[in-house]
Amino acid sequence: MYKPKYSVILGNVGSCCDRYMSGGYSKSFKLEKLFDRVASIEHVEGVELVSNWHITTQNVQRIKDNLARTNLKAVSIIPDHFGEMKWGKGAFTSKDPSIRAEAVKVTKEMMDVAAEIGCDLVSLWPGQDGYDYPFQGDYIEERGWFEEGVKECCKYRRDIKVAIEYKIKEPRNRSYPSNVGTTLLMVKEIGEPNCGVTIDYGHAEVAYENVAESVAILKKYGDKLFHIHMNDNYGFWDDDMITGSIHTIPYIEFFYWLKRTGYQGWISTDQYPYREDGREAVNESVQWFVALMDIMNSMDEKEVEQVLKTGDACQATRMVRKYLLGR
Amino acid sequence: MYKPKYSVILGNVGSCCDRYMSGGYSKSFKLEKLFDRVASIEHVEGVELVSNWHITTQNVQRIKDNLARTNLKAVSIIPDHFGEMKWGKGAFTSKDPSIRAEAVKVTKEMMDVAAEIGCDLVSLWPGQDGYDYPFQGDYIEERGWFEEGVKECCKYRRDIKVAIEYKIKEPRNRSYPSNVGTTLLMVKEIGEPNCGVTIDYGHAEVAYENVAESVAILKKYGDKLFHIHMNDNYGFWDDDMITGSIHTIPYIEFFYWLKRTGYQGWISTDQYPYREDGREAVNESVQWFVALMDIMNSMDEKEVEQVLKTGDACQATRMVRKYLLGR
Amino acid sequence: MYKPKYSVILGNVGSCCDRYMSGGYSKSFKLEKLFDRVASIEHVEGVELVSNWHITTQNVQRIKDNLARTNLKAVSIIPDHFGEMKWGKGAFTSKDPSIRAEAVKVTKEMMDVAAEIGCDLVSLWPGQDGYDYPFQGDYIEERGWFEEGVKECCKYRRDIKVAIEYKIKEPRNRSYPSNVGTTLLMVKEIGEPNCGVTIDYGHAEVAYENVAESVAILKKYGDKLFHIHMNDNYGFWDDDMITGSIHTIPYIEFFYWLKRTGYQGWISTDQYPYREDGREAVNESVQWFVALMDIMNSMDEKEVEQVLKTGDACQATRMVRKYLLGR
Amino acid sequence: MYKPKYSVILGNVGSCCDRYMSGGYSKSFKLEKLFDRVASIEHVEGVELVSNWHITTQNVQRIKDNLARTNLKAVSIIPDHFGEMKWGKGAFTSKDPSIRAEAVKVTKEMMDVAAEIGCDLVSLWPGQDGYDYPFQGDYIEERGWFEEGVKECCKYRRDIKVAIEYKIKEPRNRSYPSNVGTTLLMVKEIGEPNCGVTIDYGHAEVAYENVAESVAILKKYGDKLFHIHMNDNYGFWDDDMITGSIHTIPYIEFFYWLKRTGYQGWISTDQYPYREDGREAVNESVQWFVALMDIMNSMDEKEVEQVLKTGDACQATRMVRKYLLGR
Repeated sequence: MYKPKYSVILGNVGSCCDRYMSGGYSKSFKLEKLFDRVASIEHVEGVELVSNWHITTQNVQRIKDNLARTNLKAVSIIPDHFGEMKWGKGAFTSKDPSIRAEAVKVTKEMMDVAAEIGCDLVSLWPGQDGYDYPFQGDYIEERGWFEEGVKECCKYRRDIKVAIEYKIKEPRNRSYPSNVGTTLLMVKEIGEPNCGVTIDYGHAEVAYENVAESVAILKKYGDKLFHIHMNDNYGFWDDDMITGSIHTIPYIEFFYWLKRTGYQGWISTDQYPYREDGREAVNESVQWFVALMDIMNSMDEKEVEQVLKTGDACQATRMVRKYLLGR
Repeated sequence: MYKPKYSVILGNVGSCCDRYMSGGYSKSFKLEKLFDRVASIEHVEGVELVSNWHITTQNVQRIKDNLARTNLKAVSIIPDHFGEMKWGKGAFTSKDPSIRAEAVKVTKEMMDVAAEIGCDLVSLWPGQDGYDYPFQGDYIEERGWFEEGVKECCKYRRDIKVAIEYKIKEPRNRSYPSNVGTTLLMVKEIGEPNCGVTIDYGHAEVAYENVAESVAILKKYGDKLFHIHMNDNYGFWDDDMITGSIHTIPYIEFFYWLKRTGYQGWISTDQYPYREDGREAVNESVQWFVALMDIMNSMDEKEVEQVLKTGDACQATRMVRKYLLGR
Repeated sequence: MYKPKYSVILGNVGSCCDRYMSGGYSKSFKLEKLFDRVASIEHVEGVELVSNWHITTQNVQRIKDNLARTNLKAVSIIPDHFGEMKWGKGAFTSKDPSIRAEAVKVTKEMMDVAAEIGCDLVSLWPGQDGYDYPFQGDYIEERGWFEEGVKECCKYRRDIKVAIEYKIKEPRNRSYPSNVGTTLLMVKEIGEPNCGVTIDYGHAEVAYENVAESVAILKKYGDKLFHIHMNDNYGFWDDDMITGSIHTIPYIEFFYWLKRTGYQGWISTDQYPYREDGREAVNESVQWFVALMDIMNSMDEKEVEQVLKTGDACQATRMVRKYLLGR
Repeated sequence: MYKPKYSVILGNVGSCCDRYMSGGYSKSFKLEKLFDRVASIEHVEGVELVSNWHITTQNVQRIKDNLARTNLKAVSIIPDHFGEMKWGKGAFTSKDPSIRAEAVKVTKEMMDVAAEIGCDLVSLWPGQDGYDYPFQGDYIEERGWFEEGVKECCKYRRDIKVAIEYKIKEPRNRSYPSNVGTTLLMVKEIGEPNCGVTIDYGHAEVAYENVAESVAILKKYGDKLFHIHMNDNYGFWDDDMITGSIHTIPYIEFFYWLKRTGYQGWISTDQYPYREDGREAVNESVQWFVALMDIMNSMDEKEVEQVLKTGDACQATRMVRKYLLGR
């Protein structure tokens, strides 16, 4: 039975804002309360932290205390390369070399902090690294800067993995690590063993990827799937909804390929429960994970292999229906 | 318990072509064989016919014989306004008045034929009525022609319903009856009691409609849902796949709103099984219909009402999970 | 020569935030400074105001002073139905009747304020009126609430027009006034002469509308185009970019249909210059408006009519190229 | 001045069909007439041929005669891996090893034929190599088969280049060479110097690529842009329209990056003029190419460099407007 470990990005159980409701859709919570809310969710064993929003070089002890108190494992740190004004026109690909240096520095700091809190992964989300308009970006030079910067981080300490989370757009209209292919090209160019990829389920969906296939691609070209973020959407935008609220079968196939490729990392929620209670919304996602993972695990492996060998669509839908609906 | 009747568009159990494989992905079947294949599918009681492809003014007796032999009900006729060279630049909205007249004539003929085979509906799919390029269409005049033409058909005989099936694009890059809103505006302008709308599930999806909501809209503004075509897709194109192969929950909500609004018409498959055996692919769709309809019927009506009253997303996902997965 | 009047939504020349950079991409400006920045842009004669963000019942005199000082006309007020926590789950369609009443009250107040500052239009953007998840909305009842609320506003005072701005999604995953068709159905149901529609160019694009056709539709079904918001995007999301930065020809056709249908209202910029200087970005849009409007005006009307009559795509592209590129 | 050579896919000046109008939107032309029609278009120096549709191992002399007569250069052959029934479930990735072998054999034959007609490129369009449904494809094994097959072709003769044309979908709902990234990963895995990529402008657009950036990516990771197909679309589907009919500025940036990266290959039209005269529609595209290429060539290189260095969107739009509209 395949049983990955589940974690939660800490802010998911808090309050969300958007460009119209910049003050937030609900009141915010203190750090301790956020930890308590995550810890209260059944099946969850880990927590993922965003720098500045949750963790800094200054509050490491407070984080360690919270981890100890709630018995949660620190799974990953996401360095803030997107939420401070200085990152507005790019972090690793800013036209300003001092900002690029700062992006590297912040990453290294968070690698050190990660080590300190017993976590072996930083997940980079270079949301501001891209462009918006024609004739705004030098696509070759800037891609080069990105690779140099991340390479320097990877070489800084080998005991911490550095995963790049891709997204086709938002906040930039066009991002450099846009989809599984362009990101893997960068990872190969960087060429460091501790450099890999974070799949965000929703980001992949919006890039019209079948996420199960993306898992296979990352396996095939270097075993580079390091981390996973989960959520759901309507296919056109990173709606960051409750996992399982819209899609069903695609998750089952996705989980199947995680099992088949032997993915051993964590699965974190990454959602924006604008109008929901965050703890409830995350709890819902986890309930769906567990239920859909159980369905996947109930599938006879030989039968799946057989269906894949034939490639017969009717056999495939019949098999899925049997395991999903019991008929 | 809500139990609509299921039917099949006759060609669905046959062979398909596309613009690259114009000769077809598989061998074609004789008319009799097509009827037999539909009749062999459990739960199916009706058949829908496309003129020229299956039915003409010349072969009515042959169709009647096949209906009698297979004990299938003729559910609807779709007049061919899309597959003959003369329709290439529009049928009801052709710039050529003689083509527009021909579109009306063909429709009236099929209304007569419908009556003759015991069927009370023609479903218009004006796939060529639209435009491709900027400065190609006079949007006001052509919309007017469409309404005039359909109105004339509706008035021709009141005992036959005339439903307009909308689609946002294909084969034209932009269609006049594009989505539920623009089509209902036309239906209201036509203003005939026997004029309504056919929802094709996949067409609505590609227009970013929540199809359950489209059902509600058609109820609210005149009770105009006359007919339903079913299939599945990935959200961006009319892939015409097996119903239930990609989406799950959206069908349950769709069926709920059919029940809630008292839809009494037929539900036809409308799929393009390019690489599948057509009969098998349709059978799969019907198996999914029945299973998902049963799930919808198992939902406690008061509970659904209660969830709708709160609008709480977590309650909604929890309720859906309970009925779908039993946990 | 067709020459509409140009205006600017006041906040467009200020600072923007998004869900990651909630503190804003740049420093904000004082109200007076915002007015000055708008007034400094050539060709701009009017300004559009968002309540709470720029105008309240309390600062009317200050606004009047600014209008007088800068010689700008107040073109429209957009009542805030989206940026305060109370609107998070809907304004006109909130499940809470007291919030619905509040949405009406705020609108009426802004109608009064509009009259006081010499402005004859409020443009409603009901961004929170929609839903996110299956089984969350009662689509019939909530649409009814929307119509009741807006109708009450329209009847409150006939000298102020009330325009509904549609958008297919964001901030809700699904909005009630989603596209030109569903919105016009609501406007017809409301049935008040001072009720109409605001087209936001980008919103219409994301709904896969050809905006020129949307103008024609609004003309055909009741002459209901009351106001226009302008921006540009890549087609999949409301990127709110500089007008003319991505699309070219579609604007020319759009302007042609404004002229042809005799649109006499204002054209406002509505953009989010996250990483640009707002005044510069708006100035760019206006320069494009003027240039593309001049191109449209240079087109020979008889020639356009002739091309529309033939519907010949090659003639259409040749004509466009001649006027756009002079060859 | 940058001046690439223009060519036409022979069938573009002929008749088109789609899944509804399988018999074609217009009458077809003889091979000789197709050549004449291409040759009659100013600025066009080359022709691209599809095997089976235009060229076979049997009619090489007839093709040579036509080339000689019309003074057109054979630019590329596209082996038919998509239009015969045997390819329906895949060519290089068919589950049937004899079909996979056939895909290789056909390619080698066309490489030989290419050499014979003085052409140094075959452009593979593996439209059937992909999948439609969940649990239908073994994504690792099938990608491996694809790479093996193409590698064998590349090694067969080094004097002929083998370019892979990517497309995110159609005719399969999901294609293996889906976008610039996944395709380049394959090309790198294949690892042959004569293996590269064909960009189809419209395919890239539908994958939400900025095609200018795709050119840069192919330059950066191995100088792998071998060939280009041109057309236009509305962004969501491979509409195969007249180049320049919808987009304007993106082509200028695309041409700029072709120049900047020193692309020396051909630019072929690849369009489906369903309802147009094919020769006229291709002629329109070429007129747009030439005009937009001239605009690109008129741009001051130092100025463009300077704008790219600042990354300032307003400077970028101002520069584009100056060169496009002269103001």
